[in-house]
Amino acid sequence: MSEVDNPAKADIGLVGLAVMGQNLVLNMNDNGFTVSVFNRTTSKVDEFLDGPAKGTNILGFHELKAFVESLKAPRRIMLMVKAGPVVDAFIEQLVPYLDKGDIIIDGGNSLYNDSDRRTHELHKKGILFIGSGVSGGEEGARHGPSLMPGGNHAAWPHIKPIFQSIAAHVDGEPCCDWVGNDGAGHYVKMVHNGIEYGDMQLICEAYQMMREGLGMSGDEIQQVFAEWNEGVLDSYLIEITRDILAVRDDDGELLIDHILDTAGQKGTGKWTGMNALDLGIPLTLIGEAVFARCLSARKEERVRASKVLPDISATFDGDKKEMVDAIRDALYASKIISYAQGYMLMREAAEIYGWELNYGGIALMWRGGCIIRSQFLSKIRDAFDVNPTLENLLLDDFFIGAITQALPGWRKAVGTAVALGVPAPTFSSALSFYDGYRSERLPANLLQAQRDYFGAHTYERLDKPRGEFFHTNWTGRGGDVSASTYDV
Amino acid sequence: MSEVDNPAKADIGLVGLAVMGQNLVLNMNDNGFTVSVFNRTTSKVDEFLDGPAKGTNILGFHELKAFVESLKAPRRIMLMVKAGPVVDAFIEQLVPYLDKGDIIIDGGNSLYNDSDRRTHELHKKGILFIGSGVSGGEEGARHGPSLMPGGNHAAWPHIKPIFQSIAAHVDGEPCCDWVGNDGAGHYVKMVHNGIEYGDMQLICEAYQMMREGLGMSGDEIQQVFAEWNEGVLDSYLIEITRDILAVRDDDGELLIDHILDTAGQKGTGKWTGMNALDLGIPLTLIGEAVFARCLSARKEERVRASKVLPDISATFDGDKKEMVDAIRDALYASKIISYAQGYMLMREAAEIYGWELNYGGIALMWRGGCIIRSQFLSKIRDAFDVNPTLENLLLDDFFIGAITQALPGWRKAVGTAVALGVPAPTFSSALSFYDGYRSERLPANLLQAQRDYFGAHTYERLDKPRGEFFHTNWTGRGGDVSASTYDV
Repeated sequence: MSEVDNPAKADIGLVGLAVMGQNLVLNMNDNGFTVSVFNRTTSKVDEFLDGPAKGTNILGFHELKAFVESLKAPRRIMLMVKAGPVVDAFIEQLVPYLDKGDIIIDGGNSLYNDSDRRTHELHKKGILFIGSGVSGGEEGARHGPSLMPGGNHAAWPHIKPIFQSIAAHVDGEPCCDWVGNDGAGHYVKMVHNGIEYGDMQLICEAYQMMREGLGMSGDEIQQVFAEWNEGVLDSYLIEITRDILAVRDDDGELLIDHILDTAGQKGTGKWTGMNALDLGIPLTLIGEAVFARCLSARKEERVRASKVLPDISATFDGDKKEMVDAIRDALYASKIISYAQGYMLMREAAEIYGWELNYGGIALMWRGGCIIRSQFLSKIRDAFDVNPTLENLLLDDFFIGAITQALPGWRKAVGTAVALGVPAPTFSSALSFYDGYRSERLPANLLQAQRDYFGAHTYERLDKPRGEFFHTNWTGRGGDVSASTYDV
Repeated sequence: MSEVDNPAKADIGLVGLAVMGQNLVLNMNDNGFTVSVFNRTTSKVDEFLDGPAKGTNILGFHELKAFVESLKAPRRIMLMVKAGPVVDAFIEQLVPYLDKGDIIIDGGNSLYNDSDRRTHELHKKGILFIGSGVSGGEEGARHGPSLMPGGNHAAWPHIKPIFQSIAAHVDGEPCCDWVGNDGAGHYVKMVHNGIEYGDMQLICEAYQMMREGLGMSGDEIQQVFAEWNEGVLDSYLIEITRDILAVRDDDGELLIDHILDTAGQKGTGKWTGMNALDLGIPLTLIGEAVFARCLSARKEERVRASKVLPDISATFDGDKKEMVDAIRDALYASKIISYAQGYMLMREAAEIYGWELNYGGIALMWRGGCIIRSQFLSKIRDAFDVNPTLENLLLDDFFIGAITQALPGWRKAVGTAVALGVPAPTFSSALSFYDGYRSERLPANLLQAQRDYFGAHTYERLDKPRGEFFHTNWTGRGGDVSASTYDV
């Protein structure tokens, strides 16, 4: 349908016709909503209408004004454009055409503090802003994504019917609910993406262990992932790994063996790590996963290093089947650690930024539609159903049981990786975290003594109440001045 | 001396009389410089003059104006106050009393981008700003710190004589030289502090391994650190650990055993980690060290966790002496990794921020005076003397040899920590990094395939030139649209 013969009013408008935008529009159309679309490069609008959108009720526009005028009040406009200045530029262009009460939704991978800012700036102009996480990639967008909306709560009733219709559903429940005010939606999406970085790296380490450590063929490994997808690891990322490892290139070799081993890391993964450092939450697994991508990117340097640094002579001579099970246990236990850390971070963020997050609800939103969807997330939801104020996932009975069962295999897999020289940064970081977390005493007493020694930073004592600080003149030489205003 | 009978002009003025400020002033006085001092709480000025500064040429002031007027032109004023707004507040108060060409030096632990900003802001007013890293704690400040000045290069000739006199000296060379423009001095100090976080955590893990893993007594461990300080680990932090482990409390027990095992992490350590994530440099060891402090801070939660999570039944039954040597090797090799990562970060920062950093010179500045001072840093300087454009410390012959020698013990120590359940996050993170760094092939090919599968992100191929991107329709269902403008 062209804009000339368009008397109808559309339910929602969408700006940005890259693959995610196109698929969301088609999904909305399938669910009975009339959608208007606009794209900066207007030829894309025509290509879309003549191509994937042919025969639908989707309305295309070449002018932003006409696009806005085609929408029912309150107008709902969703931006699916590149995160950053492009979002602000479109908001600026849209606002003159909008009325009070109209709604702008940013469905890009925006930084949560940008969504904080946009919610407040648009609120002053009477416009309701929603920053929504959208996950699920192409397929999710087309057939049911996970949606994590936050921002101005007054907009929620107006977008809820559309969002909950197009979202993925699991056991009849939509993978979309209100997350929280201001930037909460994009924050939870950021953590989701950080967890996605972790999940992907965990799978890569399992693959590398089987490939390089155990010397298994691509077909054997493919079979293992197929089996794993029937058990506790049942998840989208394991499923697509199974599928990927079955794809052959034109030469008959596995396609995976022709792909360059370098990955980018810009974006939400690094933001999650930076936020965790800033808030002081030990998000070690995601941190290592992001850094693993950084290391992979230094391909040429690694090739040079591989020629001069000593190689390992050890080869695996144990029971392969047992070791594969141990790798599975390591993957599962490490994944529990990663989610526990992610929830620690969200809990702290809610405290600091003043959000009321529904932790079980978040697990449900991630349960379907998105990249990290898995059976596993039902168990997280169950844990918060049993105890909504659960301090840490690792203290929930189900997860205590799961860790207990996986622990021997986990230790065995990490120990074997260490002995064979197969890099397993997230498997081993997760285990170090676990052993630290369950340690009543860590060696930070020595660290505090060091800081007091060289910087007069003072320390607390085990036999005195918290908040009482002591300084020791360790050398007998220094003064008794403590470093109250200067932090070394 | 009081300000009333003060006709003389001082060489430099210092604001902020906490322990670091006091000691720097006494150090300058010892080196023949006349110093004026000011403190916001003016009673501290009097206490200082009547106490530690009694009998010196130090001049005290209660009024900022009189303090400034006591200084020779161009005036040199050093701030030793809390990093952040306090620095800006003092700059604002000082500027009206200053003339063009006067110099303000910030010796606090300021963030490098604040020093960038201050250099530029003050430049517009004709004032020369220096942001200088100062390390060495109380003792260093008093008897010779490591000084890392950056900022407005025009100020350097005017402060060089003072800075290079009061700095530590090693083999006749001062541990102070020009670092670079704008925030470069504080940047290098930030990385220094990050490395300090790493070094301290490494020592803590060695301690924990001996204490919890091998069941050694405090006295036995003290003896080990004393021995280590005579070998390749010879350094200030090992030395003070040896001293700390010898200190007994009033009850005759080791004082260390009464100190609470929680450490703070705010400040330069976390900034280093955040910057590394932002620049995409795999600074895994410092990242784990910062997170280890975060985990230590959750003391009460750890105590609760220790009661419900499964403990380990394994105990060490090997050769204790051999294992202590393996732990030493792990510490040494991990330390090499940490410095290699730190230098990777500085190299990238110089590239991005446009600084010309002298990498060998930085090793020399850290060689004495500061908290991380060690024999080891001479080896780093040597490496850059041999090859000023060295790509990575791990590719220098000396360090290849050192790693080769330490590698078997390192693997053994990490494997034992894993088996015994002793948390060793930095030992094992360093080893994972090493094994990744020397891997010609990492499993990032699988990761790229996953990203292309769910997000149409495209990938490069091993058999095609870099920069050529491919997309596979993995499922046979999705479209051929690649995700050029939307980053999942």
